[in-house]
Amino acid sequence: MKIVALAGGVGGAKMVDGLAECLPPSDLTVIVNTGDDFEHYGLKICPDLDTVCYTLAGLANSETGWGRAGESWRTLDEIKSLGDEAWFNLGDLDMATHMLRTQRLQRGELLSEITGDFCKQWGITVAVYPMSNSPVRTFIHTRAGRRLSFQEYFVRYQFKPEITEIEFEGIQKAQVPEAALDAIDKADAIIYCPSNPFVSIDPIIQIKAIGESIQQKKILAVSPLIGEHALKGPAAKMFRELGEVPSALNVAKHYRSNLSYFIMDNQDKEQSKTIEGWGIMCRALDILMPNRTQRKRLAREVLTFLEKSV
Amino acid sequence: MKIVALAGGVGGAKMVDGLAECLPPSDLTVIVNTGDDFEHYGLKICPDLDTVCYTLAGLANSETGWGRAGESWRTLDEIKSLGDEAWFNLGDLDMATHMLRTQRLQRGELLSEITGDFCKQWGITVAVYPMSNSPVRTFIHTRAGRRLSFQEYFVRYQFKPEITEIEFEGIQKAQVPEAALDAIDKADAIIYCPSNPFVSIDPIIQIKAIGESIQQKKILAVSPLIGEHALKGPAAKMFRELGEVPSALNVAKHYRSNLSYFIMDNQDKEQSKTIEGWGIMCRALDILMPNRTQRKRLAREVLTFLEKSV
Repeated sequence: MKIVALAGGVGGAKMVDGLAECLPPSDLTVIVNTGDDFEHYGLKICPDLDTVCYTLAGLANSETGWGRAGESWRTLDEIKSLGDEAWFNLGDLDMATHMLRTQRLQRGELLSEITGDFCKQWGITVAVYPMSNSPVRTFIHTRAGRRLSFQEYFVRYQFKPEITEIEFEGIQKAQVPEAALDAIDKADAIIYCPSNPFVSIDPIIQIKAIGESIQQKKILAVSPLIGEHALKGPAAKMFRELGEVPSALNVAKHYRSNLSYFIMDNQDKEQSKTIEGWGIMCRALDILMPNRTQRKRLAREVLTFLEKSV
Repeated sequence: MKIVALAGGVGGAKMVDGLAECLPPSDLTVIVNTGDDFEHYGLKICPDLDTVCYTLAGLANSETGWGRAGESWRTLDEIKSLGDEAWFNLGDLDMATHMLRTQRLQRGELLSEITGDFCKQWGITVAVYPMSNSPVRTFIHTRAGRRLSFQEYFVRYQFKPEITEIEFEGIQKAQVPEAALDAIDKADAIIYCPSNPFVSIDPIIQIKAIGESIQQKKILAVSPLIGEHALKGPAAKMFRELGEVPSALNVAKHYRSNLSYFIMDNQDKEQSKTIEGWGIMCRALDILMPNRTQRKRLAREVLTFLEKSV
């Protein structure tokens, strides 16, 4: 069964890693959000893409979920000693990725090509594509009237500002890698990984070329919420600030128009009746992935469910 | 006595460091070559400026002459492991300088402002200015018909290619910091540090605004050659490839038109007669600066000579 997984940061990376353990490489393609990419100290930084790749390569810091294992911080400490706020964590190993990527982008290479080469170097056998080779930038509009780039909102201000609106600048001109669209075309199912619906999955599926091509497909979403809580990040807080109760049900509702299948946590099982009423087949599972064994377990259960249902 | 020192890399930095030990900070201004600046991995790198500043701050690696003491190479090693040649040595501490500089330049700040702030952070009390706030780029034309950026020639190809011509791209549009021109205006003497005449001092003095303003001044040059050898780098080799014997005499001849005073090594003393015949007052000294004590000693001797002569 050929799968295309759409993923954002940490939760998405874990799900993708589990799927990669269960599927032959040729059956899995990952399309990653690039809406929270940004330029910092002259370097092009792609946080979600790197989190997915580091995780797949077994290079990720398993405690934080982002960044590299065995990381050091000599450059960043030195930047701080020069009086800079240094609000974004850039480790010495991680930096190599940004520097080479920046160099190659400035030479006119495509982000998808560069990512493919990095994957080869890191021994990643599944195909990983950025959602766009041209910049799409997520901006968070806040109640205080500010328009923050995603990383400013997320890291610098620790997602404390209250959001009123989310904007994906450049999404109309997004250049989806051809190979990513081919993979969607050949896929038996699309999986929305348990990533933030508003800022990880939405920027991917709101790209017209992707949104249209997945409409023909069976789509399964895995809830990023358990109870009223996000496992990581601002998803629950965003639901509230946008006027909705954070819940598996409202995740399913958010994706409702295209969704065929929905995976929720066992503890949210009672919400499945309402969701199934919308014609979405539900399955309650243990969706926590505290380690690699659990990632693989959840991926296998999701794939088994899909195989029976598609 | 107010001095403006023109400097390139390692030799220039040593001389400047000695002068800074002998003069009150308000009496010394350093103007540094930026012709070998370049962009690498998206970062703006100013090798001569950094060598001068690191040396003045006591942060320089005393073995290499360039880069930082106590440096580490985690990022560069990681860049190599990603398959890149990594021909330019960028240490983890050094990187902080390039990253902050790049960020601030991209925000529209001037290189001279940024350099001034770095100097403050590093406790440097003498004024250090880049020769230009706009890019001037040294290109080396080679016998093999290539046009190499200076760092490619110097570091990547270890100055092995035979040179035929040296070009300073952008020199007509060079924007000399106002404060640097003010310092020249107020100076009692200009010192050409023992830097490479062709690629360290020439790019500075061939900027029209600098060339014209120093014409009114007493200029002293310190030879970068002892016997037929450069203490470091390609100066001697360049003399040969440009058809001249590398010698103190030919250094003085190179600078001849504006020069009032010339400092050569004791072992080249016999050349002084010819040079004095051109109206240039000579002094033979021990011009080796193997350590800080010797830098200070040479600086004091040069300043004493100047005080008596100007």
